[in-house]
Amino acid sequence: MAKKGRVFSGARPTGRQHLGNYLGAMLNYVALQEDYDCIYCIVDVHALTTLETTLDLRQNTYEMALDWLAVGIRPEESIVFVQSHVPQVMELHTYLSMVTPLGKLTDLPTFKEKAREQPHNVNYGLVGYPVLMTADIVLYKADLVPVGVDQAPHLEFARETVRSFNHRYNTQVLIEPQMKVTQVPKVIGIDGQQKMSKSLNNHIELAATPEETRQRVMQMVTDPQRIRRSDPGNPDVCNVFSMHKIFSSPEQVEMVNTECRRAGIGCVDCKKLFAENLNHHLQPFRQRREEISQNPDFVWDVLKDGAKRASQIAEATMVEVRQAIGLP
Amino acid sequence: MAKKGRVFSGARPTGRQHLGNYLGAMLNYVALQEDYDCIYCIVDVHALTTLETTLDLRQNTYEMALDWLAVGIRPEESIVFVQSHVPQVMELHTYLSMVTPLGKLTDLPTFKEKAREQPHNVNYGLVGYPVLMTADIVLYKADLVPVGVDQAPHLEFARETVRSFNHRYNTQVLIEPQMKVTQVPKVIGIDGQQKMSKSLNNHIELAATPEETRQRVMQMVTDPQRIRRSDPGNPDVCNVFSMHKIFSSPEQVEMVNTECRRAGIGCVDCKKLFAENLNHHLQPFRQRREEISQNPDFVWDVLKDGAKRASQIAEATMVEVRQAIGLP
Ligand code: SF4
Ligand code: SF4
Repeated sequence: MAKKGRVFSGARPTGRQHLGNYLGAMLNYVALQEDYDCIYCIVDVHALTTLETTLDLRQNTYEMALDWLAVGIRPEESIVFVQSHVPQVMELHTYLSMVTPLGKLTDLPTFKEKAREQPHNVNYGLVGYPVLMTADIVLYKADLVPVGVDQAPHLEFARETVRSFNHRYNTQVLIEPQMKVTQVPKVIGIDGQQKMSKSLNNHIELAATPEETRQRVMQMVTDPQRIRRSDPGNPDVCNVFSMHKIFSSPEQVEMVNTECRRAGIGCVDCKKLFAENLNHHLQPFRQRREEISQNPDFVWDVLKDGAKRASQIAEATMVEVRQAIGLP
Repeated sequence: MAKKGRVFSGARPTGRQHLGNYLGAMLNYVALQEDYDCIYCIVDVHALTTLETTLDLRQNTYEMALDWLAVGIRPEESIVFVQSHVPQVMELHTYLSMVTPLGKLTDLPTFKEKAREQPHNVNYGLVGYPVLMTADIVLYKADLVPVGVDQAPHLEFARETVRSFNHRYNTQVLIEPQMKVTQVPKVIGIDGQQKMSKSLNNHIELAATPEETRQRVMQMVTDPQRIRRSDPGNPDVCNVFSMHKIFSSPEQVEMVNTECRRAGIGCVDCKKLFAENLNHHLQPFRQRREEISQNPDFVWDVLKDGAKRASQIAEATMVEVRQAIGLP
């Protein structure tokens, strides 16, 4: 059946995925497969702009790909690959860099933020991050890029860069990608404060064992006003309740909402219930993950095959690009 | 016979070469072949950082390669190729950009100069010029790079970048290139003032016909103090005399040196003599050029074959580089 177009999305190789990745990206990746030809890229080259060490790069790539496959990304249908395996992206990046004003890059809020975060390492590659991201998208002639609202400026940058290139070389070779803004819940970490993230160690790993998951959930910060079991709580300010709303049945959500407010349920029981539901929810994922990981070669083969298919699209684009530029 | 090492040099595709190119680079390229394995690259990607139009890029590449072959660069022995035909250089450029502080690039005098020259086009690629140049050199593991004194800072930059990369990834994969500073005469254009350059239109093309050459030489500015034929001249301030010193016999040089000072020879005759000697000197070059150009495919085939051989070296380096970085 003909699909509606081509989607591209990239994610840094952060290793085993957590609930934030799951709710923020992975479920969306799976769903998009219904309507689009999807290209999902593990962007290891981007990772180099900020990584302090590359020792885990290979393992993190493997673990992330494994999670993607276990969650339901279908490699016969979608292209799953590692960015550096298709070096044409760096070639296109170089050509795009010739039509990108330096000032536009250094003015981007994300650059300023990163430069503040790693003042000892404001490398040339870091500045070019949005150019490389543009190359990712247009190399594969993606029609659509799923982005969170915070990434909208990057996609606008990509669109402008495409226009600059096409105008500079009087061509229509590159396609302006459209944004598909996805409404994703902001997933808060177990600290109850910050966005769930591996680097803050406030995350819950999808691939954890049920027991590890339970322990992690038990550490979750709840309504800070609720000190004693006998204090009534306020689910509206409690991250555990937010999670219930996603992973528990409507009846259970209703029960917690009511009982918490009148101290009818304690936080320990409330978390146990959530942990149980979460483990139940993740059970099929974990089983598939376990099955796939019996044969690590399978994951690498999927990535290799993905790179091969991605290369074909990439090289076709580059033939057009080189010709449009007028290279010898 | 074993040679002493590998030389890399790149030159922008400026089309038909002139006397400045000849004396400043081409003769040196030919000579280096005796002692080194030489890789000579037409750097079209670099050209994109400053070119206003790419319409002539292909033709300029062809003409320059033709001049190189006619002057005595031996393609069976040396590798002659077009930079963009071996895209690995852009891949390596991207990886090197991750270990290059932005500030170091924007502080380089050459960047500041170019930014002044083209304030409307300070593109991201322009900033990265020295990184791409480093990639050129180290991709081919060149031992030696012939540079003019003015380019010494770029080579120092390349050496530092190699050290940064090797240190960052704890490897010895990349080789620090050595500088081979070449003493080249500063070739002044027919205006008698500025360095000979196509863009100033003060150049004498190697491939011009004898008659065109004569006309061009007749336009040369001589000792500005010598107004009338009867005025004695000063060869020491005359560009025609500098040229005599290169292209005329010692006896003729001596004669001009003497006769000019006592108005024994007029500028017209003096130039005619130089034009004659220059045409005589360039005759074999022009004949070879004419022969080769009978078959334009030959030039493109040389470049294609060069790219193939360069690719092999490049890909071998990249396999090591990717592994050293720890890419999946
Ligand atoms: S009972 Fe549940 S919803 Fe209420 S504060 Fe405790 S953990 Fe949060
Ligand atoms: S005679 Fe020759 S050397 Fe003397 S000023 Fe004229 S051109 Fe120059």
